Amino acid sequence: MAEVWRSGITNDGPDSNGGQVRGVQMTELMEKYSFADALLLTVFGDSFSTGQKRVIEAFLSGMVDHGIGTSSARAARLVASTGADHSAALAAGLLAAGGPRHGGAVGKAAAYFEALDKDATSAEEIVARAIETKERIPGFGHAVMKDGDPRATMLQQIAEQEGVSGATLAFATAMEAEFEARKGKKLPLNVDGTFAALLVDFGIPAEKAGVFFLIARTPGLIAHILEEHEREGKLRRLEYDEYSFE
Amino acid sequence: MAEVWRSGITNDGPDSNGGQVRGVQMTELMEKYSFADALLLTVFGDSFSTGQKRVIEAFLSGMVDHGIGTSSARAARLVASTGADHSAALAAGLLAAGGPRHGGAVGKAAAYFEALDKDATSAEEIVARAIETKERIPGFGHAVMKDGDPRATMLQQIAEQEGVSGATLAFATAMEAEFEARKGKKLPLNVDGTFAALLVDFGIPAEKAGVFFLIARTPGLIAHILEEHEREGKLRRLEYDEYSFE
Amino acid sequence: MAEVWRSGITNDGPDSNGGQVRGVQMTELMEKYSFADALLLTVFGDSFSTGQKRVIEAFLSGMVDHGIGTSSARAARLVASTGADHSAALAAGLLAAGGPRHGGAVGKAAAYFEALDKDATSAEEIVARAIETKERIPGFGHAVMKDGDPRATMLQQIAEQEGVSGATLAFATAMEAEFEARKGKKLPLNVDGTFAALLVDFGIPAEKAGVFFLIARTPGLIAHILEEHEREGKLRRLEYDEYSFE
Amino acid sequence: MAEVWRSGITNDGPDSNGGQVRGVQMTELMEKYSFADALLLTVFGDSFSTGQKRVIEAFLSGMVDHGIGTSSARAARLVASTGADHSAALAAGLLAAGGPRHGGAVGKAAAYFEALDKDATSAEEIVARAIETKERIPGFGHAVMKDGDPRATMLQQIAEQEGVSGATLAFATAMEAEFEARKGKKLPLNVDGTFAALLVDFGIPAEKAGVFFLIARTPGLIAHILEEHEREGKLRRLEYDEYSFE
Repeated sequence: MAEVWRSGITNDGPDSNGGQVRGVQMTELMEKYSFADALLLTVFGDSFSTGQKRVIEAFLSGMVDHGIGTSSARAARLVASTGADHSAALAAGLLAAGGPRHGGAVGKAAAYFEALDKDATSAEEIVARAIETKERIPGFGHAVMKDGDPRATMLQQIAEQEGVSGATLAFATAMEAEFEARKGKKLPLNVDGTFAALLVDFGIPAEKAGVFFLIARTPGLIAHILEEHEREGKLRRLEYDEYSFE
Repeated sequence: MAEVWRSGITNDGPDSNGGQVRGVQMTELMEKYSFADALLLTVFGDSFSTGQKRVIEAFLSGMVDHGIGTSSARAARLVASTGADHSAALAAGLLAAGGPRHGGAVGKAAAYFEALDKDATSAEEIVARAIETKERIPGFGHAVMKDGDPRATMLQQIAEQEGVSGATLAFATAMEAEFEARKGKKLPLNVDGTFAALLVDFGIPAEKAGVFFLIARTPGLIAHILEEHEREGKLRRLEYDEYSFE
Repeated sequence: MAEVWRSGITNDGPDSNGGQVRGVQMTELMEKYSFADALLLTVFGDSFSTGQKRVIEAFLSGMVDHGIGTSSARAARLVASTGADHSAALAAGLLAAGGPRHGGAVGKAAAYFEALDKDATSAEEIVARAIETKERIPGFGHAVMKDGDPRATMLQQIAEQEGVSGATLAFATAMEAEFEARKGKKLPLNVDGTFAALLVDFGIPAEKAGVFFLIARTPGLIAHILEEHEREGKLRRLEYDEYSFE
Repeated sequence: MAEVWRSGITNDGPDSNGGQVRGVQMTELMEKYSFADALLLTVFGDSFSTGQKRVIEAFLSGMVDHGIGTSSARAARLVASTGADHSAALAAGLLAAGGPRHGGAVGKAAAYFEALDKDATSAEEIVARAIETKERIPGFGHAVMKDGDPRATMLQQIAEQEGVSGATLAFATAMEAEFEARKGKKLPLNVDGTFAALLVDFGIPAEKAGVFFLIARTPGLIAHILEEHEREGKLRRLEYDEYSFE
C-alpha cells in the first residue's frame, strides 16, 4: 500500500498546462493577480470578499517588519552571522515569530474572541470581571504604545471604509471603551487584537489566525538577514563583559 | 561594551509614531502599499522601477506553490502530521525550499549569468562548448515541461510589456535559440533562468537572488500545512510494505 | 541598560582555564566523563544517582533511531535530498521529532503520571473508568507491538536491577496488569510510558521529560541524512502517479 | 511507481523483535552499549577501534557546551523566550551551530587536511608560504586562548595514550611547531583542528566531520533552553536604548 499524498491546492500534473492553483492557471496568477490575492487564493481558496482582502493586505503590509529589537529578527541575524544559508536564518526567525509570546498574539486573541458568547455576556460584564480578577485579556494593551497603536486605528478605519467590520470587532471596541470608562486610562485594543476580531468576523477559525503574521514577517526577516551580511558580516559572539556566569 | 544591534530597515522607536519602514510610516504601508510593494521596500529599499516591480510580483504570484510532490511541501506536511506548530512545519518546508537542488535554482542561474562576460563571448560560443562538454547550464531545461515552461514565457512577456527586459535576458534567450538550432530540439530557458536573467538586468546581486523564492513559497507551504491538518490529521508513518531494510 | 545574558551552565571566561561546565573543567569532562554523564551534568547538573543515570543512558541508547518509516527521519531526508546542509536537515528532523504525536509521547505520559494523585485513586479505579469512557491513556499501547515492547521490558529490568524503580512505575505496571485482567488482552505499558514513569520517580518535571528523546534521536537523524546523501543523492520529488490532485 | 524509502540503518520490521540498529538488537543497545557507542554504531556502523571511540567520546564530552556567549546558545534562548517548543528552540540553535563560522570549523579544517598532499609538501613549506601570503589556515589559532587550548592538548594526549594518533595529526603539530619557530609566538592548533586531523587519520571523509559537533552541542543547547525558561521566562525584546536605527 502506498502512502497517500493528495492535495486540492495545486494541480501541476502533465495536463495542467504549467500548473493551476485552486483552479486558476499559474500564468493567470502571474498576469492578473497581485501577490496578496495569489497567496490568499492559495491558502484560503475563494473565501474573502474584496473588502476583506483589503483589510488582510493592510495587515500584511503593516506587519512586514518591526525592527531589530524583536526576538525573531535577532534569532535570524544570529544564525545569519554564522555564515549559514538564508533559509536557515529565516527558519530560525520564523521559529521565534511563531512563539506564543511573539507572533502567537493574533491567534490567542482570535481564540479568545471565538470562544466569547456575545449573546450571553456584555462588554461591561467582561471588563468589570477582568478588572476585578486582574485577568489579562489577549489583544489589549501594548508594552510601549500606551495611548493606542496607530496600526490598530488604521486597520479599523480600513475595515469600516470597506464595510467589512462585524460584530466581533464592535464587541472588542466596546470592551476598549469600557476599560477606559472604568479605569480612567486607556487599555487600547492593539493591532493583533483588532485583526483577530476581524478574522473572527470573516469566519476564519482561530487556529488558522496565526498564519498571516508568519507570511507578513517573512520578508522582514529576510531584510534583516541581508542587512546582517552586508553591515556586520562576522560571527556574533558576546564579549566577556557582555554576559555573566552566575 | 555592549553588542551592536543597529539597523536601517525599521525605526520603531518611541518617536516613530507607530513605526516607519525605510522611512515610510507603517500606517501608510497599510493604507497605500500593496503587500508586494511593502515587502520589496522592506527588503530592497527603493531599488525598483514600477515595471520591474510588476515583473517581480508576477514571479512571486506564479511561484506561490508547486504542488504536494515537491520536497518542501512534503517536509512541511510530515512535520505538521506530528502535531507540531505551524511555524515548525513552515520552518522545515523552508529549509527544503532553500536547498541548492530545490529553490536554490534561481540563485545558481543568477550566479551563472552574473559571471558571464557578455562582451568577451557569444551565445553561439557558449552553447557550442556546452554541447561538446555536456556541461549542464543552470536555468535551462525542465524535468517535465520539455517544450517550454509557460511561466517562463509569461515572465518574458510581462518584462517586454513593461520595457524592463535587458541585455542578460536577451543573451539567455539567444542561448535558448542557439540550443534549438544546433540540437533540433528545445532546451528551454525555464522560469528560474528567466527570472535570474531579469534580476541580473535589474542589478540584484546573485547572492540575494534566492530570497524571492523563499518569500513566494511561504504561503504555499502554509496552505499545505493547513490542508494536512484538515484532511489527514494524524501522524504520517510508513507501513512496513512501504519501505525496506536493505 | 544592557540586555541580561547570564548563565549558570558553563563558565568559559578568561580565568576558566579552557572552560568549566557545572563546575567541572572541560578537560576533565574529556578525560573522565562518558558522553552520557557529560550531557546529563550539562542539562540537569548533579541530579541523578548512578543507577538513575544507567536507566537514562539505556533509554538514550535504545531510542537512537527507529527506522526510515518515522516522520522525523523522512523530513530530515527530504531536506537532505535538496542538497541542504546537515544542520538544516537535522533541524527539520528534530522539528518533527518534537511534535506531540511523535517524540512528545514521553512528555505527555510524564504529565499524566505527574498529575496522578496516587493516594486518592487506584490502578483498578483508573483502568475501570478508562475502559468505560474509552479514554486513551498516554504511555500505553503500541501500533504494532501488541504484546509488549521489549524495550519497555528492558528498561524496567534495568531500573529494578539498579534499585531505582519507584512508586510511579509500580502504579503504571499495576495499571498494565489491571488492563489485561479486565480485557483479557494486553494493553502494554510502552517504552515511552515506562520512561515517563521513571522520570517522575526521579523527580524530573514533566515539562522537561521530552528533552531526552530529542538528544537520543539526534544521532539517528544524522545517520539518515548521511545515508540519504550516500545512497540517494538527488532531489526527492514525487512522480505524477505517486500523488493526486483531488 | 512508489517512491523508494530504503535504509540499512535500523530494521524495525515485524520480525525484528523490537528493532535492530546495524544488526544489534535495541534491547542489547540498552543493556550493554554506552550512549556514545550506540550513537557511533548508528551513524558510522562498526568503523572505529576502541581507542578511536575514546578520542571521539572525549571530543563529544568536551564540546557539550561553550557558554551563553555563543551565537547558537543565544539563538536557541531567543526562540525559547517566545514560549516556543523545546524542539523549535533547539532547531534554531542547531541552525546556528551548523554555520561555517561556528560549528563548521571542524569540517573546514578536515577538508584542509584531507586535501593536503603530505608526501609532496612539508610543514615547513606550508607555514612559510602561509606567513608570506597571510593565508589563514583552518584549525589554527583561537580568538581568546592565544597560548593554546587545553582541550586540544587533552585530545592529543588521549589520542597518544590510545595509540590512535596518525600522520595527519603529526603533520598538524609539526605545522604548529613551525609557526612558533618562525614567528616567535604561538599559533596553536586548536581543538577543532586537532579533532579534524584525527578524523582524517581515522578515515572519516571531511564532508562528514561536522556531524560530531552537532551531536555534542545538542545537550548544551537544551540546557540553555531549560535555563532560559527557568531563569528568564519572558519574551526577550531589546529596550530602545539597546539598539539603534541608523
